[in-house]
Parts: sequence; C-alpha cells; structure tokens
Amino acid sequence: MENTDLQDYSHKRFNILTGEWVLVSPHRAKRPWQGQNEEVNNEKRPTYDKSCYLCAGNTRINGEVNPDYKDVFIFTNDFAALQSDSPTFSLNDGLLIAESETGICKVICFSPDHSKSLADMSPNEIQKVVYAWQEQYKELGDNPKINYVQIFENKGAVMGCSNPHPHGQIWSQSTLPNEVDKKNTQQLNYFSKNKSSLLGDYLAQELEKQERVIFENDKFVVLVPFWAVWPFETMIAPKRHISSISDMTDEETLQYAEAIAVLTKAYDKLFNTSFPYSAGIHQCPTNGNDNKHWHWHMSFYPPLLRSATVKKFMVGYEMFGTPQRDITAESAVKMIKALL
Amino acid sequence: MENTDLQDYSHKRFNILTGEWVLVSPHRAKRPWQGQNEEVNNEKRPTYDKSCYLCAGNTRINGEVNPDYKDVFIFTNDFAALQSDSPTFSLNDGLLIAESETGICKVICFSPDHSKSLADMSPNEIQKVVYAWQEQYKELGDNPKINYVQIFENKGAVMGCSNPHPHGQIWSQSTLPNEVDKKNTQQLNYFSKNKSSLLGDYLAQELEKQERVIFENDKFVVLVPFWAVWPFETMIAPKRHISSISDMTDEETLQYAEAIAVLTKAYDKLFNTSFPYSAGIHQCPTNGNDNKHWHWHMSFYPPLLRSATVKKFMVGYEMFGTPQRDITAESAVKMIKALL
Ligand SMILES: O=P(O)(O)O[C@H]1O[C@H](CO)[C@@H](O)[C@H](O)[C@H]1O
Ligand SMILES: O=P(O)(O)O[C@H]1O[C@H](CO)[C@@H](O)[C@H](O)[C@H]1O
Repeated sequence: MENTDLQDYSHKRFNILTGEWVLVSPHRAKRPWQGQNEEVNNEKRPTYDKSCYLCAGNTRINGEVNPDYKDVFIFTNDFAALQSDSPTFSLNDGLLIAESETGICKVICFSPDHSKSLADMSPNEIQKVVYAWQEQYKELGDNPKINYVQIFENKGAVMGCSNPHPHGQIWSQSTLPNEVDKKNTQQLNYFSKNKSSLLGDYLAQELEKQERVIFENDKFVVLVPFWAVWPFETMIAPKRHISSISDMTDEETLQYAEAIAVLTKAYDKLFNTSFPYSAGIHQCPTNGNDNKHWHWHMSFYPPLLRSATVKKFMVGYEMFGTPQRDITAESAVKMIKALL
Repeated sequence: MENTDLQDYSHKRFNILTGEWVLVSPHRAKRPWQGQNEEVNNEKRPTYDKSCYLCAGNTRINGEVNPDYKDVFIFTNDFAALQSDSPTFSLNDGLLIAESETGICKVICFSPDHSKSLADMSPNEIQKVVYAWQEQYKELGDNPKINYVQIFENKGAVMGCSNPHPHGQIWSQSTLPNEVDKKNTQQLNYFSKNKSSLLGDYLAQELEKQERVIFENDKFVVLVPFWAVWPFETMIAPKRHISSISDMTDEETLQYAEAIAVLTKAYDKLFNTSFPYSAGIHQCPTNGNDNKHWHWHMSFYPPLLRSATVKKFMVGYEMFGTPQRDITAESAVKMIKALL
C-alpha cells in the first residue's frame, strides 16, 4: 500500500479499543457547505455572574447555596439521570428486556471564575481538578453499588452545555455503559493473548512513527488516534500502563494537567473561538475484578469541522451505518500542531 | 416487577437488534432547560426556487442540468463520500488497521415541488419514492462490488441537511457498516436458534400488548421500539417476515407509503413545525449470502425533545457511556398517537 492512499481515497480504519470502524473520505473536504451555521459567542464573560447557578455564593434551583469556594467545588446533580435510592427490578418478558440502574451523578466546578475554561487555567490550577477527579473516582468506586465512574465535560452550547461556567460531570453507576463494555472486551482479549497493554503497544507505535503525535512530555502523549471519528478528535494517555487515574504519581498528575492545558489552548486557537467539545475519561471499572488489562485515557470529541460556525453533523449515514469523516487524522494533527 | 417502575425509575432497556442498551431516566423530564435553542423556520417555501440545486431545470455545481422531472429524480452525489473507481488497498501495520472502501452514493429527490416534504405528500406520491428505492436497491445490489445499500434521509437544518428540497440519499458500499453488522449478528443468532424472525417475534408481542403501537394497517406497524433512544424515535416494519424492500407486493408498497404518510404528518403536528429527523432503512445485505434472518425495517431518529427549538443533545455521557433518554417510550407513544 502507498502511504498516500490513506490521504487520497475512501477507506475505513479500525478502532482497536471499540472494535468498530470509521469511514474516511479525504477527497470530500472539498465539498462546499450550504447548511446550518452555529452561533458563536466570543464575548468575554464576567468573572462572576449573579444569575449563574454554579458561581460561588449563588443559590441553586433546589434552594441550596453554593459555598464561597476557591478552586474546585463538587455537588450532587440537582437533576441526576441516575438515582441511588431507586428500587431494584428487572423485566424479562419475551423480547422486552430491562433492568433497573442506580447511580450517583455529580457536578464539578473547575474554578470559581465564571469567565474561565480549562484553556485559561494553568497546569497547577488544572492539577487541582485532577486531584478532585481522583478523589471522586476513589470515593464513588468504594461504594459497593458503584461499579463504574464516568468523568466527562460538555463544553459549549453546541454540545448541550447549558451553563458556560467551567464545569464537568461525573455519572457513576452499577453496570458498565456500552462504550466501556466494548473497550473492556477489546483490552481484555488483547491482554490475555499478549500479556501487554493494547493501548500501551499502540502508543509505542505512534511514538515511534510521530505521524499523529501532537505533544508529549515525560509521562503523557497527546495524539489524534488513527481511527479518530470527529474532525479534531484527540486522546491524552499516560505512557505507562496504568489502569485508572488513581494510580498516578504526583508528578504524573502535573504532567497530565500540562497536557490538558497545552491541548485546550491549541484548540481555542484553531478557529479563534472557545473550542466546544465533549471530553471523557475511560478507565478501569470499580467492580473489584482483576482489571489489569485497562490502560486509562482521556478523549476529546469536538464537533467543529471547518470554522467556529460549521460543525460536522453525525446524522443519517453515521446513525444508520458508520461514523464518517472528511479530513484525515494526519491533516488534523498538522493543523493542531502548528498552533502549539 | 411493577409495570409503573419503568415509568418512574432509572433503568436500562436492551435493544434486541443491536445488542446494546439505552439508559432511561423518566424522572429527569422535569429538568428545566437553560441551554441552546435551535432556530426554527416555519416559513412556507416556494414550489420552485431558482437557487436550489435540486429543483427541476436548475444547474448543479458540476455544471449538469437537472431534467424537468415530474415525480422522483435520482443522480450520483456530486460530493460522494464513497467512490467506485478508487484503488484497493489494506494496511495491517501492528495496531494500525485500515482497508479501502468503495461504493456509490446517490441523491434522490422525492418531488419536484420545493415546498413539500414527505409529510405533505399523498400515499400515492410516496409510493413512487418507494418504487425508486426498490429499483435502486436492486440495481446497486446487482453490482458485484456492492454488498450493502443504505437508504436514508436527513431532514431539517438541525440534522445537517443543507437543502430543504425534499430529498434523501443512498450510500452503497462493499462492506457492512457498523450498525448493519450488529443487526446482522443479532438477527442471525436468533434465527439460527429459533427458526423465526427476531423482529417478527418482537412485533407479534407489541401487537398483542398495544402499549407502544402508534398505527397499523393490514401489512405494516408503526411503533416506538421498547429500546428507543431518541425522544420520539419510531420504527415502521412489515408484519410479514421479508428481508428487503424488494420483496414487497404492490399492495405492501402502498401500505408502507401510507404508514410513512401517517407518521410524518403526526410528527409535523407534535411541535407545530416541519419535524426534523434522520430516517433510514435497514435491510438484507446484497452480498449473495443466505440472509433469511433479516427482517427489514425503517427507523426515524428525530432530535427534538421539548419543543420546536429544544433538542436532545447526545453528548458527554451518551458519547462515552450509553445513550440516555428522559421521557419514556410509552409517553412518547401517547403524545404521537393523540395527533393521528
Ligand atoms: O451529504 P450531505 O447532506 O451534504 O451531508 C449530511 O449527511 C451526511 C450523511 O449522513 C453526513 O456525513 C454529513 O455530515 C451531513 O452534513
Ligand atoms: O446534564 P446537562 O449538562 O444539563 O445535560 C447535558 O449533558 C447530559 C450528559 O451528557 C446529556 O444527557 C444532556 O442531553 C445534555 O444536555
């Protein structure tokens, strides 16, 4: 195979972590865009907004008053999708199959400063967020009813985020979500066969090739995965095979924070806008099983395609068939890297 | 289990066709919405628009002139994501795995009338669209390089549709897309074990219960699947076990068209707007295998949640975990049924 084939012709790439494919159509980036444009709001926000339910000292919808917090503030989601006190039941009626699901959903404010995002925070400030994630992962994971902890952030109105105050969420639950289950299987199969980490072996290959690596420090690598779906999708992963964020040394937490800072700053420069995305950490379930096969990583799924106002729509073909992308992973790397 | 549990408490439901789960949080519908609102354009469009590249007699971007068509008009996508003449290659370099993918992408105009959508067309007019889908499925499927034909429609700007002229697309290719592959496996496993159609047996259960059925005629049923993900997701399926749209009798094509007409009209009434969605037909691959296990069906995935301007965002938790819905399938049925 000519290496240029991947830059010129339709092909599919295999996601080793989920076992699914992505369709890549490099030639299609030339298509003119006549569809919907997103709204952009590049207005600078105030550091405090009296109508924001996440700002320090403000009252939330349920009447609770936020403390006068200085760095990170965590509370249980006032409209949690999962509840810890609901009854246990299951339905097995022919082809109607359902099971109760319990859990705990939390909101985590990254900073009291309403005007900021992770991209405006220093590695030291972000490290405090990482510490909070570690504590939550541990505390929730220790709960016998919780077997998986999903840490994520929806950033930007276009990603369904209803409040621009810098914050993320943590949904923890008793069973493994679909995506986690897929990654569990793929990593387990590989580990059983090769006695090494699937993601670790992949990272070694990428570090050798340096075609999709955006940034690295001693402990972490930031790259566009070979099988990336979203136009500017990226992944941050520890070079060392560690299965959850609690296994990091203190030095690693700071280098992880640095990787987040570098990436989010570059993102903001890409289209000259506060770059929207959903980011999430996939890591070892807290079900007490032997989860050595897990290698934790954080992924960023940003929707923008061509500019601050033109996003990629994952619709028709993507919903019924396979996710499809226009620009290749390799061209995305070049664009992001140029902004470091 | 109390039947009310499913209406009151968080649970997950199993999609028998894909083998994946959806998280249902009925109590969460009470959450106030403070996020992004979509733009709505309820303006009546003209029957002909001289700047529309799909209207009869107009010139497309590549210089071709559309014929003066009277009902359905089909042409090869000017910016096809899949091409039929690209080279064959594959990459198997450690954990970097890719394969060339070829195919043919077409656009199908449902009517020369720029102002219409399927919801404004009569069953007889829609039947002509069904005939065209059948012909395309057959013609593309007969091509030895094509093993799967994906028929779909993206409707509305919010679904990435760049032109309001009534039209859909057909992407056909040499391998099975992810979603089709999942449904192939689930149906095959069930058929091998039970010697009957998975979807057929499910439909029989739903027709008996009548809790999720929106509409039925002699040959077709329109329902909200037990495992629906999108707030107003629906499925149209033939009662008879037929694996592709080519196997329909002429009477069935008309009853299918009627089902589409009834459903899309009710959708438009729901929020008093031309209801956006992606719709797609999943059917038997054209790979020449014994595909008796397939039972074809058409699904509608509409994004709106609460009104013409508030959609459901499938973001953070949904991308990293499992799709999550607020209103239950059963309440969606009641709302749609009231509009028939
Ligand atoms: O081909 P269109 O209508 O221009 O494009 C639309 O549908 C395609 C197929 O679902 C998607 O890949 C695009 O993201 C979407 O904008
Ligand atoms: O909880 P939020 O931020 O109000 O809601 C947002 O994130 C959730 C978790 O990804 C999604 O289910 C919602 O659709 C989205 O609007």
